[in-house]
Amino acid sequence: MSVTVALDAMGSDAGPAAVVEGVAQLSREDVDVHVLLVGDEPQLSTLLAEQRYDASRIAVVHASQVVGMGKKPNEELDAKLDASVLVAASLVKQGQADALVSAGSTGGVVLAAARTFERLPGIRRAALAAVYPTELRHGPRDDPFALMLDVGATLNCSAEDLVGFAVMGSAYSRIVSDIGQPKVALLSNGTEASKGTPAIVEAHQRLLEMPGVNFQGNVEGLDIPRGTVDVIVCEGFLGNVVLKMLEGVSEVVSDIARDAYARKFVWKVGLTMLSQGLRQIRTMTDWKQYGGAPVLGFDHVVIKAHGRSNARAVRNALKVAAKAVRRDLAGEIARGLSD
Amino acid sequence: MSVTVALDAMGSDAGPAAVVEGVAQLSREDVDVHVLLVGDEPQLSTLLAEQRYDASRIAVVHASQVVGMGKKPNEELDAKLDASVLVAASLVKQGQADALVSAGSTGGVVLAAARTFERLPGIRRAALAAVYPTELRHGPRDDPFALMLDVGATLNCSAEDLVGFAVMGSAYSRIVSDIGQPKVALLSNGTEASKGTPAIVEAHQRLLEMPGVNFQGNVEGLDIPRGTVDVIVCEGFLGNVVLKMLEGVSEVVSDIARDAYARKFVWKVGLTMLSQGLRQIRTMTDWKQYGGAPVLGFDHVVIKAHGRSNARAVRNALKVAAKAVRRDLAGEIARGLSD
Repeated sequence: MSVTVALDAMGSDAGPAAVVEGVAQLSREDVDVHVLLVGDEPQLSTLLAEQRYDASRIAVVHASQVVGMGKKPNEELDAKLDASVLVAASLVKQGQADALVSAGSTGGVVLAAARTFERLPGIRRAALAAVYPTELRHGPRDDPFALMLDVGATLNCSAEDLVGFAVMGSAYSRIVSDIGQPKVALLSNGTEASKGTPAIVEAHQRLLEMPGVNFQGNVEGLDIPRGTVDVIVCEGFLGNVVLKMLEGVSEVVSDIARDAYARKFVWKVGLTMLSQGLRQIRTMTDWKQYGGAPVLGFDHVVIKAHGRSNARAVRNALKVAAKAVRRDLAGEIARGLSD
Repeated sequence: MSVTVALDAMGSDAGPAAVVEGVAQLSREDVDVHVLLVGDEPQLSTLLAEQRYDASRIAVVHASQVVGMGKKPNEELDAKLDASVLVAASLVKQGQADALVSAGSTGGVVLAAARTFERLPGIRRAALAAVYPTELRHGPRDDPFALMLDVGATLNCSAEDLVGFAVMGSAYSRIVSDIGQPKVALLSNGTEASKGTPAIVEAHQRLLEMPGVNFQGNVEGLDIPRGTVDVIVCEGFLGNVVLKMLEGVSEVVSDIARDAYARKFVWKVGLTMLSQGLRQIRTMTDWKQYGGAPVLGFDHVVIKAHGRSNARAVRNALKVAAKAVRRDLAGEIARGLSD
């Protein structure tokens, strides 16, 4: 099945060159993914001309504006009706593409999706999910990653929202990570069913009664890096703080390793000898290249490629989007909710 | 000034032996701290007899019961009126001791303090604060630590509670870490004043108007391990998850290092060569030995020594408690609130 992805190529920290490189790479692989490259046409065409690519699989669609990083996305979208992310979303809405992938600002893509697409029946609020590195491995491919949602789309959540996130995270993990019955848990301040905010306590009770979700109860902060479960569910405020903290820890570990490397010959030798052992720590600091963050809850597949996306991350985000389309993510979520 | 500390010696994971060892150590130092060692008298006296100690500085006070770890502290305290933590708190209340230190369960000491002591004027809710390791260093001693509160005493907080925590954390940091004007920030999902829950947004505005607090605005998850500020303020639910996650990250890093060490000769050599470079990472995994967690908001100094406390951690918790008494922590908080 051929899949077409509308790719918002603008607004990434790394610039459109890395995005175009990733698209060109993918076009040369045997994957049957077509890409509508949305953004400044002259710039994108010039960048594309510098790459080897399969021209039958890439088309450039012009959009004259870009949602700026660090600005208020609501105001940006109000003012910029020809913003690349809105144009890309419209292509999906109109059926010219099957999925939206954006390398631009997170707020921009979440809001563009909310303005353009419908929410899935039974889903009141969208969620932004993040794949993050864990000590334990997951699924048939032994992935050293787990999924956490929401990490920032919906700051405060009702019990119903959390239940919806559990169903969506479970469906995404089944489809993208090939885990048959993903273990799902609520993030709380204790494992007992009585622990947490009222919304968490209520969601806990409701999830116990849902046969379609392999609900493991509550997990605590300790379980995040360990990776006790495949899918961690929390409200967006908490998920945002936790995810940024994981990034911070990664940076600190990198800094320490880099410092050690720079400082002394004996440490350089030590680090070189340790290269295999350090790979696991490096995974923690580098995990962003391994794909994108799905925006879940809409009737179309939406993936946010990471802000500092390199070519490989863009290619992976496109592949993940195509997989989610082929395996009918929206249908899988709907089935999870109807159980 | 001589300070007397009532020390609840029971209920720690490590058992009373490590607690007694720490007390004995401190008694041999030139610090003028007296300890009332509260718990099972025969057991404590036997343990004490095995140590070298200054008998003029240690007295054993019998308590026949212990608050169990992992049980509901409210029910435990209702049922066990002779629990060591309640007896120790009473000694402080009656003026026989100046501060309460407990090696037992966190819930037990927070509740025993709430039942026995008065809250400080202007403080509606108590906070449990935690010292945690950071990349950046703090204060005149270049401590690689910062303070975070609340980490679990008050799950959901009003703006007023958060402001109180900021004042208390600032006072504690001034007194215990000797930082003249500790940098204080609210933990949120963005640095802008508009970011966060309504309580955070309101607390932000109020803290801007308090000259006694060196308020730096909001920080994000990234800033926790980096240590951008000296004191991070958040509600207890969030702080609990974040602190346990830091512990989890520490354990994962330890596990990886231990695995690497066990696996191959070349890695052993590498790790040994790196020992100085790894010390900084080890600090992150070992930080619990560096003192206790203050319970703030009461009219007496209360310190929770960590559950897996070793002798050194107990000794340090006693020294911190004595310092907080000598420098009048309660008065410092009251002055902060009246500014």
